[in-house]
Amino acid sequence: MKIKKARKLIIDIFLKYKLPKNHAKICADALINAELVGSPSHGLTRVISYCNRIKKKVINPKPKIKIKKISTSITSIDADNAVGFIGAEVGINCAIKNAKKSGIGLVAVKNSGHFGLSGYYAEKAAINGFISFCFTNAPPAIAPHGAKKTLLGTNPICFAAPTESKVPFVLDTSISMINRGKIRRAAKLGKKIPFGVALDKKGNPTTDPNIALKGLQLPIAGFKGSGLAWMVDILAGVLTGGNHGGKVKDPFDDFTGPQNVGHLFIVFNPNLFVKDYKKRIKENIKRFKKIT
Amino acid sequence: MKIKKARKLIIDIFLKYKLPKNHAKICADALINAELVGSPSHGLTRVISYCNRIKKKVINPKPKIKIKKISTSITSIDADNAVGFIGAEVGINCAIKNAKKSGIGLVAVKNSGHFGLSGYYAEKAAINGFISFCFTNAPPAIAPHGAKKTLLGTNPICFAAPTESKVPFVLDTSISMINRGKIRRAAKLGKKIPFGVALDKKGNPTTDPNIALKGLQLPIAGFKGSGLAWMVDILAGVLTGGNHGGKVKDPFDDFTGPQNVGHLFIVFNPNLFVKDYKKRIKENIKRFKKIT
Repeated sequence: MKIKKARKLIIDIFLKYKLPKNHAKICADALINAELVGSPSHGLTRVISYCNRIKKKVINPKPKIKIKKISTSITSIDADNAVGFIGAEVGINCAIKNAKKSGIGLVAVKNSGHFGLSGYYAEKAAINGFISFCFTNAPPAIAPHGAKKTLLGTNPICFAAPTESKVPFVLDTSISMINRGKIRRAAKLGKKIPFGVALDKKGNPTTDPNIALKGLQLPIAGFKGSGLAWMVDILAGVLTGGNHGGKVKDPFDDFTGPQNVGHLFIVFNPNLFVKDYKKRIKENIKRFKKIT
Repeated sequence: MKIKKARKLIIDIFLKYKLPKNHAKICADALINAELVGSPSHGLTRVISYCNRIKKKVINPKPKIKIKKISTSITSIDADNAVGFIGAEVGINCAIKNAKKSGIGLVAVKNSGHFGLSGYYAEKAAINGFISFCFTNAPPAIAPHGAKKTLLGTNPICFAAPTESKVPFVLDTSISMINRGKIRRAAKLGKKIPFGVALDKKGNPTTDPNIALKGLQLPIAGFKGSGLAWMVDILAGVLTGGNHGGKVKDPFDDFTGPQNVGHLFIVFNPNLFVKDYKKRIKENIKRFKKIT
């Protein structure tokens, strides 16, 4: 009941900000999902940032989304600076459709924005019976290995696979030691962040979220995480036509223009090469569960 | 000149082990490449392990490789227990061919073996002008997060992208703190391994490579690396028809049967969604170089 109320509240807010009803619903569902899966950093707390961007005219509440079919498998989408949820929803649905027809779907989205949790979209593909990768880039937060200046986003790697049960395998991991939303939340709540996840501007470790936000976040595993985040920047930014190389604008502080975040979705049928995928993944998970 | 000599030597060894000449050359080129890019752990030191497996009849020196075309984009390959280099070479070439025709190539290889460096294959795609992912799984070396028993391989994530120059962007990173080959090499040379990369059987840290080889390697970034390695096991093992979930046999010690390693190659054209990819990647790299 509370969920229904929260959903209606968010829809009403977005309607006030001139979103069409179907778009307002898409946004509300994504935000509610973040709360339900235990990621409040990507949940209701974000509503205000989307609204602020609409008010400052750097998010387009009434986008004309252009869908350009390149082949049965491949589609290019221009989200016309819609709220990120809209570009991502159109993108993943299109990739699923392509995969249904041809076995594989490859879909790029440009001129989009922050779309919340990648896992939400990957899970949609898995529920439809498909393997998926979702890539998106983010504003500079991490310094590339060897640098003291931020350039890379927390650029998550996200993968999902259907299982034999209703619960799919979903991996959605930022390439930073902790996600930026958690640091923002700590700042809001006046809490400290763990040691070893961020540095101040000069490169000294800090546990103060406000100093961390102005400084650098650390990538996972040093040069390895730095490389993985760079890979995601190429996939989601360079390839799609989105911003890249440190040019994605911060959704909270930078109103000088649209974010132009890019997304890349790769979706394919798990039974292309084997006949008994469900049996195989069931066995795979069983072996993990046995020892953990 | 020394390289030519080494190449001829390796070819001659593999010919003695009954490989056809073209296959012997493919193996030699991959092994020499590992030395030249600074990965001796995947270079000449490995020759003996492949030969031992041929001698023990768990690698097939005269494989009949089956190539099953599923669509213009998708191909399934059964490598018939060839040396891993052969299955991988056929796989990446097929993926490149499919991508040339349809924009994207998705190729799975099963009944293959250890194929050396993933980056070698990803680089081939990049040199041909394509983006690529190469996934392969490996024998158990890493404990899943929360377990004290190995199950996951060092399962690399490998991605390459063409650049404006002759040097492509290649990311080839194992999901372990250090790669297993490096631990084997340290054992051979009587050297220690760094602290924090491996545990003994009981879960205590160790710097002794021999104890580490019998114990557990640690994944990068704790549960994040554990999840990434699991993702690779699903992609390269569950999906392809290869072994998975801890069943890939160790190439050095386990002669009870073929390894049945799986590989998955995803290759696509970088100019599907933008017209000026080379210009964009040049700009991207420039921004990184400016601050590092």
